[in-house]
Parts: sequence; structure tokens; C-alpha cells
Amino acid sequence: MDPRIREHAEIIVNHSVDVQRGDNVRISAPPLARDLVIALHELLGERGAHPSLSLRDSAATRAYRRAVDPEDLECPSHVLAAAEETDVFIAIRASENTYETSDVDPEVTAAFGQAYKPIQDEVMGKRWVGTQFPAPGNAQDAEMSTEAYEEFVWNAITKDWDAQREFQQQLVEILDPAETVRIKSGEETDLTMSIAGNPTVNDYGEKNLPGGEVFTAPIPDSVEGEVLFDKPLMAQGREITGVYLEFEDGEVVDHAAEKNEDVLSTVLETDDGARRIGELGIGMNRDITAFTYNMLFDEKMGDTVHLAIGRAYEETVGEDNEGNDSAVHMDMIVDMSEDSFIEVDGEVVQRDGTFRFEDGFEA
Amino acid sequence: MDPRIREHAEIIVNHSVDVQRGDNVRISAPPLARDLVIALHELLGERGAHPSLSLRDSAATRAYRRAVDPEDLECPSHVLAAAEETDVFIAIRASENTYETSDVDPEVTAAFGQAYKPIQDEVMGKRWVGTQFPAPGNAQDAEMSTEAYEEFVWNAITKDWDAQREFQQQLVEILDPAETVRIKSGEETDLTMSIAGNPTVNDYGEKNLPGGEVFTAPIPDSVEGEVLFDKPLMAQGREITGVYLEFEDGEVVDHAAEKNEDVLSTVLETDDGARRIGELGIGMNRDITAFTYNMLFDEKMGDTVHLAIGRAYEETVGEDNEGNDSAVHMDMIVDMSEDSFIEVDGEVVQRDGTFRFEDGFEA
Repeated sequence: MDPRIREHAEIIVNHSVDVQRGDNVRISAPPLARDLVIALHELLGERGAHPSLSLRDSAATRAYRRAVDPEDLECPSHVLAAAEETDVFIAIRASENTYETSDVDPEVTAAFGQAYKPIQDEVMGKRWVGTQFPAPGNAQDAEMSTEAYEEFVWNAITKDWDAQREFQQQLVEILDPAETVRIKSGEETDLTMSIAGNPTVNDYGEKNLPGGEVFTAPIPDSVEGEVLFDKPLMAQGREITGVYLEFEDGEVVDHAAEKNEDVLSTVLETDDGARRIGELGIGMNRDITAFTYNMLFDEKMGDTVHLAIGRAYEETVGEDNEGNDSAVHMDMIVDMSEDSFIEVDGEVVQRDGTFRFEDGFEA
Repeated sequence: MDPRIREHAEIIVNHSVDVQRGDNVRISAPPLARDLVIALHELLGERGAHPSLSLRDSAATRAYRRAVDPEDLECPSHVLAAAEETDVFIAIRASENTYETSDVDPEVTAAFGQAYKPIQDEVMGKRWVGTQFPAPGNAQDAEMSTEAYEEFVWNAITKDWDAQREFQQQLVEILDPAETVRIKSGEETDLTMSIAGNPTVNDYGEKNLPGGEVFTAPIPDSVEGEVLFDKPLMAQGREITGVYLEFEDGEVVDHAAEKNEDVLSTVLETDDGARRIGELGIGMNRDITAFTYNMLFDEKMGDTVHLAIGRAYEETVGEDNEGNDSAVHMDMIVDMSEDSFIEVDGEVVQRDGTFRFEDGFEA
């Protein structure tokens, strides 16, 4: 077995979810991630934890969703009961074909997301991590050979997370006491929002592996302005490009996309919360140098900001504030590398991708 | 997809476990059985049932069991909670290497079986089926090419189960009112047992696919005599051959094996019930003509009788009788094709593999 796989497994078990003796652990993984699954089982055995192994198979998912009548969908109580008794969730992605669900009706996928929301809520309240195993389909999206992609993935994952935490803490300390954030990029993006009273989270490889961002939640009604997401995203097995959103009182009042606008529309119609912003994230991982069409990595890139429509993470919602609730959490990226700045309470904290506390910053 | 796979899936869903709208279904399968998993998901979608998919991975199982301290094993409450909420269990076997767990300590596997017993009890009380997907490792055990083995497996599975039920019913009607059964084969096997008051089950492809046997349970204390199992069996990733057991008052008082006797000893020591017989089964599937080192098929062969040490199936225990309970259920086969007979209440019902109600029977 590739020694980087064992190292990956160790970071998951020791750093990301800190598995303890007696923990009930659910690993969900596709067959392609088998070596990582084996390495994890060895560590969970040593640790005296209790694993269960769920199979993620996008072809089976596709077959089910194409056949099912959305009226028949409901939250499956056997999956929910297991989630309630689970302490730690480890979700591993690895695709042989990232378009496998591209011919599933977006409305069915949205209905499925709604049916599974109580399970998702359960997961979010526990220790969990989402990570990537380098697979050919993901390498293809990244326009890399599989071997080069392995290098890319494990470089981003097997790094000094303590040093990364300290680097990111500088931005956390700016955002935590702040009231207003403005994101300005090019002619089309000028968005302001209040984050007053909402904590900023330092993501250093716990819930996401790789980590490398700081994120918080806007006050749901406070988002005003317009934004053009100039990096593409994958949703429901389809690529959506050139997403444009306009906000009034926190709600999307106009939307467009260059490609697959209908998928975007379906997502926005999932529920009320799907038309509001649940997350503001700022990428800070300087080791992710290539855009690979994979949100787990793309949103951590140093020169990007991302916003998610839908669900806010509980830990980013202040005690006296209300969080945005939804079955949806869809991240979208703004490229901040040129003609852009982030303003916090009227002061520029990042210009053209360089932070105030980094070399080369120009106020 | 091979059309026989869709037919296999249809027999499972429609015949074996009769899936209904709203059923919670757990499919457990290894990656090799992917096509059957996809076909099942399509049918479950059409039916409006709710699937969850567990991954069986013998290499992960091996890694965990080699690493874990048996003291740390306990019934995992997240797996138990899911089982309690599940209506239908579909377990699919398919091996790339049937010896994958051959270097796991048998005592750990026995401890694991004990820890999982409450989950096994839950499964046994619901609709469930165990079936086989033709995989290279199983073909290798059968000493067949993978293509010939596919032919073998699907011939045995995609058959007229109504006709099979009627054929088998003739033996059920002999055994159901009977008191005593004697199994005599060669010099070494002469075993008597009472089945008084215990129902005989007609297995025509419901819980096992392929089916093709009738089975009941002996009164636990009634088994007397000795038996040599002349067909080998796989247990805990190892082959055990030439198993010899001697019974007094229903309990194993002496045992031996030609190969891997230590594994046999460990199984017998699992718990009290592991030293008693929980099942008497008589093979009746004339379409299974080759011995393939796979109990699911071997025990259904027309010229064999099998006995299982350990757990009795609930439906074979009469209301006023006690059933044998154990974490173990290990089937072992006696070849009845030569110099053998089955006697029921003093009358011969099968001689040298031919039943009383078949052509060529000699009383």
C-alpha cells in the first residue's frame, strides 16, 4: 500500500475526527477508495472503535433516482437510526465518472436531499470529515494524469496543520469581532453582508480534509448586491458556469447561469433557505495551486472567496442570531486574484488575493 | 448489463423477500457484485422502497480484526439501531479471494460473532435473503472458469421455484409429523435425533438463493451417535476437512478434523450452543450438479445431508420445544450418494441419494 494512504488515514483518525475507544464510526466510501478504507479499518481496530461501512456508488444512486417516484421518497428510518447512534462520520469521495448522475432529474435529487435532511442534521451535530481519495474521474476533471493528481491530493492533505491553523488565525481575529464584509471583484461583483455576532471558524483539516479556509455565516437578511461566480461548479452531476445572483434583503431576487441554468433554478427552489446565503468562506491554503473542478479543493485556494446558498453551519451562528436552514448547501466561488478586494468594516484586508498580513499587500 | 443479472434481481425483489412500497431495505454487497446492486436499486426505486447500501470488504474486515483487541469488541449500537429499523435484508456474496481472512485469529472472529449476535437475531426475525454473485474467487474454488461459473450460478438461481416447492413438499410431508431421523453413511456415520414437534421448512429460494432443501431442527438434547463430514467446508477463511463429531445427550463429546482442527475447536468453544446441532437439512436441488466449495450451493445438492452446529432457525422450532441458541451456525455436509440411507421413524426415505418418491428408489 502507498505509504501516503496510511498517512492520510492517520490524519483522519488522529487529527480530523479524533477517534476514541468505543466510538461508533461510519465510513462511507466508493470501491475506488478501498486502500484508504483498509488503512482506516486497521487504525479503528487498534483504537478499539466500532466501524460500519457504507458503500457510495453513484451508478446505484443514479439507477434508484431514475426509477423512483419522488412522492415515495421519505427519510429512511433505518439510516436515520444508525446516524443517531453514530459518533463519527468519515465520508470519502472518489469518482470514476463525475458525470454519473448527469441524467437524473434535478427535481428528484432535490426531493432526495429534502428527505435526507434529518440525517444530514444528525451528521452535522457530530464529529465528521469529508475527504478525497485520488481517483481517475477526479484526475480527469482536474486535467491531470492519475499519478500527478495523487501527488496533488496528498500534498494538500498531508501537511503541517498546526502551522496552517496559526496562519489562518490571523484572519479569524479580524473577522470575529467584525460587523460588515464587502466582497468586490471586477465590474459584476459587489456584495455586502453583516456577520455581526457570528463566530468565524478556523478550518485546519478537521471537517474537510484538505482544510484551509476560514468561514462564517452572514445574517440571513443582511446580504445585499450582486455577485458573479466566475469559477464553474458541479451540482447534481452537471457543470454550472457563470452563475449570477442578485440579492435584496438577503434573498435571491434574480439569477442566471451560462450553462445549466435550469439546475440552478431547481436548487434555488428546494426550500426558502436555498435562496439565502448560509456561508461566507475565504480560501487560505497556498498549497492548492491548481483549480481542479472539485469544491473540496477549489474553495480552499488562496485567491478565492466562496459563498454557499442554503444551510449555515451551526458553529458559525452566534447565540443571539438566527442561522439559515435548508436541505441545500451549495458552494460557489469568486476568483479574487485580480481587480478584487475584501473589505471588513471599511478596511481592505485582502487585495488581488494577497492578505494584509502577507508580503506584497498593497493597501 | 447481462440480462441474467436483471433476472436475478427480480427473483430477489419479487420472490425471495417480496419488497413492498415503503420498506426499509439494507443491501450488503462487495464491489464485485456492483451490477446486481445497480439492478436492485432500479427495482427498489420502482417499488418505492428505501435502500441503504453496506459494503462487504473482506480485506477491510481482515485489517480490523487483526488490529483489534477482542476485549474492545461489543455490539455496535449504530449497526443494531439500523437493523431494528430495517424490514428487508439482502446479503450478496462475491469473493475475489476466499482466503482473505485466513490469517485472522479464529478467536477474534468467534468474539466478533458473539458481539454481533443481537444484530444477527434482528436480521433472522425479518425478511432476509443470502445470495451469490459469480465472482472470480468463487469460480476458482469451484475449479471453473469465471464464465462457466456464471452459467452454473445463474442456472441454479433463475429456475422455476414453484415446481421446486412442489417437489420438495413431498419430503416436508414425511418429516413434519415424524419423530425420529437416522442418518447412516458408510462405516463412520450413524446418527439419530428426535425432530418431534419441530416444523420442517420448505426452502424454495426465499432466504437462500439458490434454495433447494428442506430443513428442520433436532431437539437439542436428542442427538446421539457419530458423524464424519466427508465434504470440506470453509470457516473463518480456512478450509476444514474430515470433520468428525461424536454426540452424547445432544452434545459434542469428541471431535477431530484432518485439516485445521484448531479452527473447529475454536468454533465449538464459542458458546454452549456451538456444541449442539441446530439444523438438519436435506439437499434437493437437482440442478446443482457440481460441488463448488460454497455452502450456499453445496448444501442444496440432491445427494447430501447437512447438519449445522449452533443456532436453530426460529421457524424450525415447535411452540412447545426449545431451540438451540448460539452465535454460531456452521453447516457441514455428509455425502449420501453411496452406501447411505435416511431413515424416518424406522422407514427408509432415501437410499444412496435417491428419494422414496423418485424413480430408481430401492427400499
